Formats: sequence, structure tokens, C-alpha cells
Amino acid sequence: MSDTESFNDLIEFIRSETNRHLQKMDIPSEPEYVYEPIRYVLKGKGKRLRPILLHLSGRGFDADPEDLMHGGLAVELLHNFTLIHDDIMDKDETRHGQPAVHTRFGQDAAILAGDSMFTLAQLMIGQVQTNTALSFNAFNKASLAVCEGQAFDIQFEGDTSITLDQYLDMVGKKTGGLVSVCAELGGILGDQTDETLIELRNYGINLGKAFQIQDDILEIFSDADNLGKSTDSDVVSDKQTILSILARKHDGWSDIKSDDPTEKRNNLRTFYKSTGVRERAQELCEDHVKKAKDSLTVFSGEHRENMEQFTNMVLNRTH
Amino acid sequence: MSDTESFNDLIEFIRSETNRHLQKMDIPSEPEYVYEPIRYVLKGKGKRLRPILLHLSGRGFDADPEDLMHGGLAVELLHNFTLIHDDIMDKDETRHGQPAVHTRFGQDAAILAGDSMFTLAQLMIGQVQTNTALSFNAFNKASLAVCEGQAFDIQFEGDTSITLDQYLDMVGKKTGGLVSVCAELGGILGDQTDETLIELRNYGINLGKAFQIQDDILEIFSDADNLGKSTDSDVVSDKQTILSILARKHDGWSDIKSDDPTEKRNNLRTFYKSTGVRERAQELCEDHVKKAKDSLTVFSGEHRENMEQFTNMVLNRTH
Repeated sequence: MSDTESFNDLIEFIRSETNRHLQKMDIPSEPEYVYEPIRYVLKGKGKRLRPILLHLSGRGFDADPEDLMHGGLAVELLHNFTLIHDDIMDKDETRHGQPAVHTRFGQDAAILAGDSMFTLAQLMIGQVQTNTALSFNAFNKASLAVCEGQAFDIQFEGDTSITLDQYLDMVGKKTGGLVSVCAELGGILGDQTDETLIELRNYGINLGKAFQIQDDILEIFSDADNLGKSTDSDVVSDKQTILSILARKHDGWSDIKSDDPTEKRNNLRTFYKSTGVRERAQELCEDHVKKAKDSLTVFSGEHRENMEQFTNMVLNRTH
Repeated sequence: MSDTESFNDLIEFIRSETNRHLQKMDIPSEPEYVYEPIRYVLKGKGKRLRPILLHLSGRGFDADPEDLMHGGLAVELLHNFTLIHDDIMDKDETRHGQPAVHTRFGQDAAILAGDSMFTLAQLMIGQVQTNTALSFNAFNKASLAVCEGQAFDIQFEGDTSITLDQYLDMVGKKTGGLVSVCAELGGILGDQTDETLIELRNYGINLGKAFQIQDDILEIFSDADNLGKSTDSDVVSDKQTILSILARKHDGWSDIKSDDPTEKRNNLRTFYKSTGVRERAQELCEDHVKKAKDSLTVFSGEHRENMEQFTNMVLNRTH
């Protein structure tokens, strides 16, 4: 069996175990006003990339498997909580081709289901047995970073003075905050030193930034089906993206306007290619992947290879 | 100095220390989209009853003062988070005479400010040094109970089949969940046995139920100024109250209809008084106060007196 095959088997094993534990979570039947939306979300077909990262990181430090399962479920619940509330704020009606929680159950139920899922995440992280206090403090520092990132994202909307550094800080919190704590919790549960934890956080923040930069590129250059989500709302929104930030200094940028998403996307594609903005964005993505991989020296042997393969897998988006 | 004077001094001391610590919390200036609403809430003139209860309980068991301050701030932050989100769901435009967070800053900012304040509460409870994991888990079990109570409250709206027991269970979670964990955390931080913690939770749940029953009565029978909040929206809503539950079996109940809140309140007052519903509700309130006080045997000496006085103070609402 090749290394790639055994890596794929390991990923599938973690994913299916995570799904199995999510399914057997003891979600009460009542009040259904809040638990029906939660069951709806838990049945979703997420890729479980965040628990997978946490498990791979923790295996590298010989962490207790039960701790890793609790940590993995906690970050997945946290991730799903943020999606429920972000979809309300961003007015996204669908997710992965299904109605968003607020579309299906109404906005008030979505607010409360999000709050409850966040609380379930806290109860889950509270169950880890190794470095318990450190784990839930890291978990909540990351949660706050994600909130701050979302706030900056909304605050930056339509503001043409936002710099590349401000954008990168924003996505480092909004996307990187959660990725970062997945890698970090593997180290905390594996009882690692502060120096190692810093490298793990750096890995996650840089991977998160690379992932978001790539997401911005795919939203314009991929077909909606490949990305698995509707991109029209993003194309016509005034949100900052790596492409809009880089395009701003080029002549003709402010002339690209259209209320028709398809026409606007085509115009943007042409502009981003001819000005070299797409290429520059791709380079920035690769810079951050490189930085992320530089932090993987804290792992050794097969664990380092697994983390490298995970990094590639996330960015190839084939899993 | 009489006992009452020294009790009042103690309450004022805890309240002002709590306010001082809330003011000096290290709230960043950016992103202002989320931290400006949080600063707005923290400047509010809450009565700080929940931290006061936690401190009184913990003093009874000689808990560490710094732990009590962290616990007290955590429950106050949790309480304020629930108010921010509940005001959105209940469409309450004002709180204590000031614009609600969603009225002042918009709904999306209120959702995110609530999420962030909940996270700040988690970081605060994570700072206690005694029985840290137990504290964290009790805190989040209570948070989930509060979410469940709010869900039942919304779910019960307009449902005329709801029984007295269902109503009491609902308010036991929605109001009692948080009061309960305040008393319980005093015991956890004072390193008490499970038996004592059960009594402390019972005290809090019963006090919470009594408080909510009284709140329901005051919403109809007090002037808005005394209660410190606008009551019109409650009078015309279809929410369950102890009075509507008890009134349902009496002839003529379903005939009381009016779109004018003042007229409706007057009609309700007359009906509740003539049918004895008001008196029965008052008895139920007192039953729960008695049950709450029965649990105070876990305290001794001046601490028990303080807890008795606190119970009376909360229900007299003169502080």
C-alpha cells in the first residue's frame, strides 16, 4: 500500500468516526424549536476538515484518542455554529445546495440554534482530560478571533481604503482563527511546549489565509458546481476579496459594473487575467502555503508527511 | 450598625466592585463593529443581581475572592449576552429605557456582539483557579438550559394547551437556569460536595421561578415606570404567563381582546382579580420562595442570613 493510499485511509477513518460520533450525540427531542435545526445541521455532509486537522496534529504528539475525538467534535460544532450565524448576516439562503438554517427554520430559530450549538461545542471541549483549562481557553480565544474576523469583514464592505495587510489580518482571524486552533489543540492535547504551540498556530493561520485567498479566486474563476456553493451573491457583493484589493490600483477597475452576476463575473475574469491580478493572487496563496509548511518542522516522520499531504489536500479540494 | 445596614453595605460593595471590573475589562477598540455594542452594554446600569448572588453563595463557603470575581463577571456577561439575542427574537426595541442593541446598532451587529460577549463570558469563567473544569461545565449546562427555556417560551406562544407544569419547567430553565448556576458556582468555587451543589441549584431554580412568576404579575399590575421596562409589548403578545395559564379555565377568559394595550391591561386586571387568579399566582410565587429558602440550610450563621435577605431583596425589587 502506498503512502497516499494509507493517508487516504486515515482521512476516511477520521471522517467516518467523526460523523459516527456526531450522529450519536445525545440531542434531546425537545424543545424541537432549537433541536430540530441542530439535527438538520448535524446531518449535513461537511468535509470535516477541521476535526481531521486536529486529529492529524494530535497523533503527531501521541495525544489520547478520546481527547482528540472530543476536541474534533468541539471544533466541528464551533464551525457549524459560525456558519449558521454568518449565513444570517451574509443573507446566504443556501449552503452546500441545501436551504440555510434561517431559510428553513426562520431567523429567530437560527439565532437560538447557533447559540445552543456554540454551547454544545463548549460542553464538548470541556470534556477533554489533558490540559483542560488550556484547551478551553485556546478554544475561546479562537472563537473570539473568528467573531472579530467576521466583524472586520462586514466593516470593510465597500471601503476602498482597505489595504492588503488589513485584508490578510481579517482572513487570518475569520478563516485562520479556527484552522489555527485545530492545529494548536493537537499540540495542547499532546502536552507540547509553548514554542511548539506557536508554530502550530502559525501553520493554521497561514493555511487559513491561503485557503481564503484560494476561495476568493475560485469564487470568480470556478464554476459554481465545482465549488459546491452558489457564488452569485459574492460576485455582486461589496465584500473585500484578494482580487478586488489587488485590482484597485489598476486603471479601469472602477468601470467594471453590472447587475447581472454572469456578465459581471465574465468582465472580472478578463480584467483579473489581463492585469496579472489573478497570477499575483495565486502567488500570494502559494507564499502562505510555503509559510504554513515551514512550521511543520515540529512534526517528524510519517506525521510530518501526513500534515504535508493534508495541506495539499485542502488546497486541491478534491476530498 | 444593624444587620440590614451591613447587608446593604455588602451588596453595594459587591455591586460597585463588579462594575469597576466590568469597566476595566480590556475591550479592544477594533473591530468597532462588534466592540462598540459591547462597550454600550457594559456601560448599562444593570442591578448585577447574578454576580451578587454568586459572591454571597461563595462567601458562605470561604471561596477565593478572585475566583468569585471571575465567576461573577462571567455570569453577568452571560446574562447580558442572552438579553442581546432575546431582544432580537422578542422584538423588544428598548431595555431599561435605552435602545436595545439591535435597535441602536442593527440586527447583524447585535447577533455578532452577542456571540462575542458569550465568548468573553467563557474566557472569564475559564480563569477560575478552583475546580476549573467543573465550573466551566456547570456554566455551559446552565447556558444550554437558558437556550432551551427561551426555545420553549417561543414554542409555547399562542398554544392554549400548555399546562402549569410545562410553564414552570420553562421558566425554571429560562430564568432559573442562570440564577441556579450563580448559587451553584459559589459552592463549586468553595469546593463543596455534590449534595450541597444540588441544594444550591434547587435554591436557584426555585428563586428563578418565583422571580418570573412575580415578573408576570408585575407586568400586568405595576406601572411601567416601577418595573423599569415597557410592558406594552408583553401585554399584547401571545406569550404564556402564570396569569394566562391560571386564567384559561375561567369563563370569560377568551372574550378579553383588545388591540389597545392600556384597555387590554385594564380588562385583564379586573378579570385576574375577580377570578382569584392574581391571588393564586401570588401564592405560587410564595410557595417557590419558601422552597428556595428551605435549601438555604446548607449555609450557616451570617451567610444564611445574607442569603435570606438577598432572597427578600430580589423579590421586593427595591434595590
